[in-house]
Amino acid sequence: MYMHDDFLLLNETARRLYHDHAATMPIYDYHCHLSAQQIAEDRQFDNLTQIWLAGDHYKWRAMRTNGVEERYCTGEASDWEKFAAWAATVPACLRNPLYHWTHLELKKPFGITDKLLNADTARTIYDACNEKLKTPDFSARGIMRQWNVKLVCTTEDPLDALEYHQAIRKSGFEVAVHTAWRPDKAMAVEDLDALNRWIDKLAGLTNSEVKSFDEYIEAIRKRQAFFHQNGCRLSDHGLDRPYAADYTDGQIRAIFLKIRGTKELTVQEKDQFKSAMLVEYGRMNFDLGWVQQFHLGVIRSNNSRMLAQVGPDTGFDSIGDFEMALPLACYLDRLDAQGKLAKTILYNINPKDNAVMATMLGNFQDGKTPGKLQFGSGWWFLDQMDGMIQQMNALSNLGLLSRFIGMLTDSRSFLSYSRHEYFRRILCNLLGEEVEKGWWPNDMKLLGRMVEDICWNNAKNYFSMALHADDGKD
Amino acid sequence: MYMHDDFLLLNETARRLYHDHAATMPIYDYHCHLSAQQIAEDRQFDNLTQIWLAGDHYKWRAMRTNGVEERYCTGEASDWEKFAAWAATVPACLRNPLYHWTHLELKKPFGITDKLLNADTARTIYDACNEKLKTPDFSARGIMRQWNVKLVCTTEDPLDALEYHQAIRKSGFEVAVHTAWRPDKAMAVEDLDALNRWIDKLAGLTNSEVKSFDEYIEAIRKRQAFFHQNGCRLSDHGLDRPYAADYTDGQIRAIFLKIRGTKELTVQEKDQFKSAMLVEYGRMNFDLGWVQQFHLGVIRSNNSRMLAQVGPDTGFDSIGDFEMALPLACYLDRLDAQGKLAKTILYNINPKDNAVMATMLGNFQDGKTPGKLQFGSGWWFLDQMDGMIQQMNALSNLGLLSRFIGMLTDSRSFLSYSRHEYFRRILCNLLGEEVEKGWWPNDMKLLGRMVEDICWNNAKNYFSMALHADDGKD
Amino acid sequence: MYMHDDFLLLNETARRLYHDHAATMPIYDYHCHLSAQQIAEDRQFDNLTQIWLAGDHYKWRAMRTNGVEERYCTGEASDWEKFAAWAATVPACLRNPLYHWTHLELKKPFGITDKLLNADTARTIYDACNEKLKTPDFSARGIMRQWNVKLVCTTEDPLDALEYHQAIRKSGFEVAVHTAWRPDKAMAVEDLDALNRWIDKLAGLTNSEVKSFDEYIEAIRKRQAFFHQNGCRLSDHGLDRPYAADYTDGQIRAIFLKIRGTKELTVQEKDQFKSAMLVEYGRMNFDLGWVQQFHLGVIRSNNSRMLAQVGPDTGFDSIGDFEMALPLACYLDRLDAQGKLAKTILYNINPKDNAVMATMLGNFQDGKTPGKLQFGSGWWFLDQMDGMIQQMNALSNLGLLSRFIGMLTDSRSFLSYSRHEYFRRILCNLLGEEVEKGWWPNDMKLLGRMVEDICWNNAKNYFSMALHADDGKD
Repeated sequence: MYMHDDFLLLNETARRLYHDHAATMPIYDYHCHLSAQQIAEDRQFDNLTQIWLAGDHYKWRAMRTNGVEERYCTGEASDWEKFAAWAATVPACLRNPLYHWTHLELKKPFGITDKLLNADTARTIYDACNEKLKTPDFSARGIMRQWNVKLVCTTEDPLDALEYHQAIRKSGFEVAVHTAWRPDKAMAVEDLDALNRWIDKLAGLTNSEVKSFDEYIEAIRKRQAFFHQNGCRLSDHGLDRPYAADYTDGQIRAIFLKIRGTKELTVQEKDQFKSAMLVEYGRMNFDLGWVQQFHLGVIRSNNSRMLAQVGPDTGFDSIGDFEMALPLACYLDRLDAQGKLAKTILYNINPKDNAVMATMLGNFQDGKTPGKLQFGSGWWFLDQMDGMIQQMNALSNLGLLSRFIGMLTDSRSFLSYSRHEYFRRILCNLLGEEVEKGWWPNDMKLLGRMVEDICWNNAKNYFSMALHADDGKD
Repeated sequence: MYMHDDFLLLNETARRLYHDHAATMPIYDYHCHLSAQQIAEDRQFDNLTQIWLAGDHYKWRAMRTNGVEERYCTGEASDWEKFAAWAATVPACLRNPLYHWTHLELKKPFGITDKLLNADTARTIYDACNEKLKTPDFSARGIMRQWNVKLVCTTEDPLDALEYHQAIRKSGFEVAVHTAWRPDKAMAVEDLDALNRWIDKLAGLTNSEVKSFDEYIEAIRKRQAFFHQNGCRLSDHGLDRPYAADYTDGQIRAIFLKIRGTKELTVQEKDQFKSAMLVEYGRMNFDLGWVQQFHLGVIRSNNSRMLAQVGPDTGFDSIGDFEMALPLACYLDRLDAQGKLAKTILYNINPKDNAVMATMLGNFQDGKTPGKLQFGSGWWFLDQMDGMIQQMNALSNLGLLSRFIGMLTDSRSFLSYSRHEYFRRILCNLLGEEVEKGWWPNDMKLLGRMVEDICWNNAKNYFSMALHADDGKD
Repeated sequence: MYMHDDFLLLNETARRLYHDHAATMPIYDYHCHLSAQQIAEDRQFDNLTQIWLAGDHYKWRAMRTNGVEERYCTGEASDWEKFAAWAATVPACLRNPLYHWTHLELKKPFGITDKLLNADTARTIYDACNEKLKTPDFSARGIMRQWNVKLVCTTEDPLDALEYHQAIRKSGFEVAVHTAWRPDKAMAVEDLDALNRWIDKLAGLTNSEVKSFDEYIEAIRKRQAFFHQNGCRLSDHGLDRPYAADYTDGQIRAIFLKIRGTKELTVQEKDQFKSAMLVEYGRMNFDLGWVQQFHLGVIRSNNSRMLAQVGPDTGFDSIGDFEMALPLACYLDRLDAQGKLAKTILYNINPKDNAVMATMLGNFQDGKTPGKLQFGSGWWFLDQMDGMIQQMNALSNLGLLSRFIGMLTDSRSFLSYSRHEYFRRILCNLLGEEVEKGWWPNDMKLLGRMVEDICWNNAKNYFSMALHADDGKD
């Protein structure tokens, strides 16, 4: 059997660490892109294509690379045609994480371990999974229960009404479903029309005029307070690179007026505005006692033809190679110098930045909160075995792995919880292998505790989030 | 025996994959720097120094590092003295790819497996090899036959008359020997005198005046048509970094007039001109249905003293650390947006750029041509075990290894075909090792096919090149 | 036992290479930050905290990350309290080099191999070590003798009187203790007040006025001659990045007058001045036949709050990501073109630069001095197993490992000699593992010699430094 119980666990220590420790821990999924609406409505999916392929730009990229036409990715083909096209691509994905994810997801929750997915097995697997998808255990909530998930954080724009989160809470669902605040649009000065529309909506929601930068920040803070009241304790900021230009308050006020007047900004003004917004975000996050996440380094929508055709987030993003160290150090120091540096998680997308990130943490650890600054787990393109191991190696060599808050799915699919299983197997095998080489003492108490901490305890202690939906108010 | 049949094949799966699949495939060497004249004349080499050390800047670098004087590298020493100096350096090369290459090349074609090359064995090995070099099996063509080479692409300047390629074709040589078009000199604005001399020759060859940029492009297109008529289907572009500056047609026309007037360009003008030329090259390559290669990131001729003394391409080049992601994305998007993006192979020289390259591909895979964008195999300094494995790992994790067109020699020596053997052993061992760990299913049909594809089928299908010399016309 | 004789030696070849070759070699510690005063006075340390934790910013960073308050790092807590805080942090350091260093240092010289350091064992280990620290074998010199150290180079500012080095020489101490010249303050134009104070002291020491740049260089040369007379043969330059701006002599003279007038420099002037100083340093080093070291890439004192509170070099530095290749090539070429390129060791702090560094060497190897340009061993953050292996892999693949001058401690503590042991075990295991895979011939004579060369012979031959204190004059 390919996906057997000891998959990836190549030594006895690893097997003990995984089965006795890692596998017993619930899942704390502090960052994902699930739809709160689907959880609120406890969505039952029509078929495997709906739950597995819709919105999955990883699979689309692989299919396009394999010569599969767009109609089978984002296009008009039927759900079955799309699934068949994907199934035929799976064997071509050998050595790609999709191959592992695919078969881990077929194993759990679907229980399929006797077949590999390919053109020959596509129909059988499709039908079998579709049957299961009709049952309560395979609804949005059912799948979360099967995986022993205790908490998830979705990601929403400040203008979101959070009605689905409120509905989930009212429903008494035993898994805590919180939102995370992602105010990227508030600094998206590349498209001033879109930005002004966003600001106008913000003004409406907050009953303010938002004529000045100060009013802008005040209005954003109002929305953040609303998120806080709804249980949010976490922000998320997606940036191509850290912004840390010099600026004065006067300059920022003037730039804001230009924005509201839809007057094109200079390159320098864009940099200054983003730099100022990041400082404001940092202060806000600190003031509310939140954790802040920075996802750094992606170049998005590289293919303008396909952007026009199928829109953003469809598989045309890639890894950038921006300068990280100096501007990130400068930004964090600005907040720390004001006594306003919140707990912070840094994610990089280019593996060349692993060492920079892992040492950046150490500059701002304050000796009060263990692991106050965190190096986020291998993200997006790096969310694979090599990527995770390199991230953990950098963190271990340059910081403290033992304080790591571990894995998250970052996914749009309810089937992605197996990425926690994947991560845990890789972690346990890594430790086990080195222990059996004699690199570290064979102290199962120490090792087992460390594994449990990374899988669950550290995250639970790090975030100030209610674990049950009904505990969310404070 | 050091170079035994299972060298580098450390597990049973690897041995089966190599012996039953990889080793049975012919060689498709789509990029090299062999001399077409030597193939045309079926050169018989005087001795091992002539065929092995002359022009080999890898060996010269190692010798200089080992304290060997220049006269034994590029200088006046006798062939035997040079060989003896190299032989004495070989033991100092342990852990360098030269150590593997050297002994693989002595094994095949020379059949020497009972001795390691060093000062003690130098004379015996030199004499034995020189004897063999006198025989027909060791002529330029004889060696290619021994290696079961089916196709090679040499690399020529647009001004090349291709007389030797024509002579090879007429001779009925059963190995297809094509040229690849390398128009780097047409955009070499660093030396305007040399550039103008080049343009004057171009003007002469194309019976045009080349007074304007439009005439320039037209003249280059004429030469490219000539290459196409001679069977060329592949271009190659060597760049320190990708150029994607903004420019207008008017600016480029004005810059060209400055060039013809030998008026020094500003830094910005140089960038703009190179950016425009790259777009023109891309259009030309697409219009003829060619594949284009970009070799990115080398800093050449770093030692000005030695450049003056022994010229370029003598071992004083090194790995650069330029920004790659944004300008490369911008350049490829410019072509794609015009519907003019040809099949493209990207090679990077700095391993830090592996992840950038491997994700860049995915932005422009079009769902029509499988593997339309390719991540070129470990190149130059990265053409070694670590480099190849890291390139394949990046490609596997971030794209599809199964669509990889595999290895090329990039060499000036007829003895370098063993680099294909080296690559194939490494590929098979990598796969075998992971299969035996249970990472991938032990499906020998799938694995064997994948190995054969990477070694031969993918390249054969990717390039539109005639496999026999006499099929070259279309 | 955790720290047994074969720790890290996982194969028979490794064990033979280590025990028969590496372990028999003395220690040549050509770069460290030990206090010459403590050697001169043969300091006997009060307790383990004094010798082990005082000044150790590696440990402080780990402690802060683990939530330990500043008073236990750099603050007012008692020595025992500090030790207890460190001991409690050690188990959290699993997979960090501190875990290995700690237990290697407890093994030798303290002989503690039956206990792991943690909160439970802290008191016992503290008391046992403190007992030993009272004995002559554990004085500064005693520890050096236990480790079979033959030479150390400390690091001093040009204004240093070298009185302690002179005292050591007079004392007849059998270990050669030389200084290394570190003139970084002479180009520190970020703080003109501090720079002028430094220049004034220089003027006083050299009986010169230092009113012009030429006088400045002359005064520095005088100090360097004084260092040379005292046995110094080695310089060290710490730089965030290489400086290679264009400048004229006239510009530099004018900039120097601005400096002396405490007039703020432009960014360009700072770059030019540093670029000019680096060329001057290079010439000086060459003229005296010295070896020069460049430590490149650190961003120092990132946390301004903590800089104000506890000063520099306290654990708030991190890895930068500066451009290295072009400016470094330009700088080295400037010296080489003048015939003034001294033997040079390049150290990088960002592992992404390994390949750049390893190929940069080859551009300037002159065929006269074997290994004239050296790639320095994994430094600071990279002084750990992964870092050392990656450095050796880059050097091996892109240069000649056999010519490597090997390890140095770079440490402020007399207990750090075990880093040589650590390096040697890692080197032997690396070679042994690959030899047993058949990658390299199992030629123990060749391998043993290579190990001995890297551990001792290469460094001894590379540096022109007297090995016994009394041979230091020339």
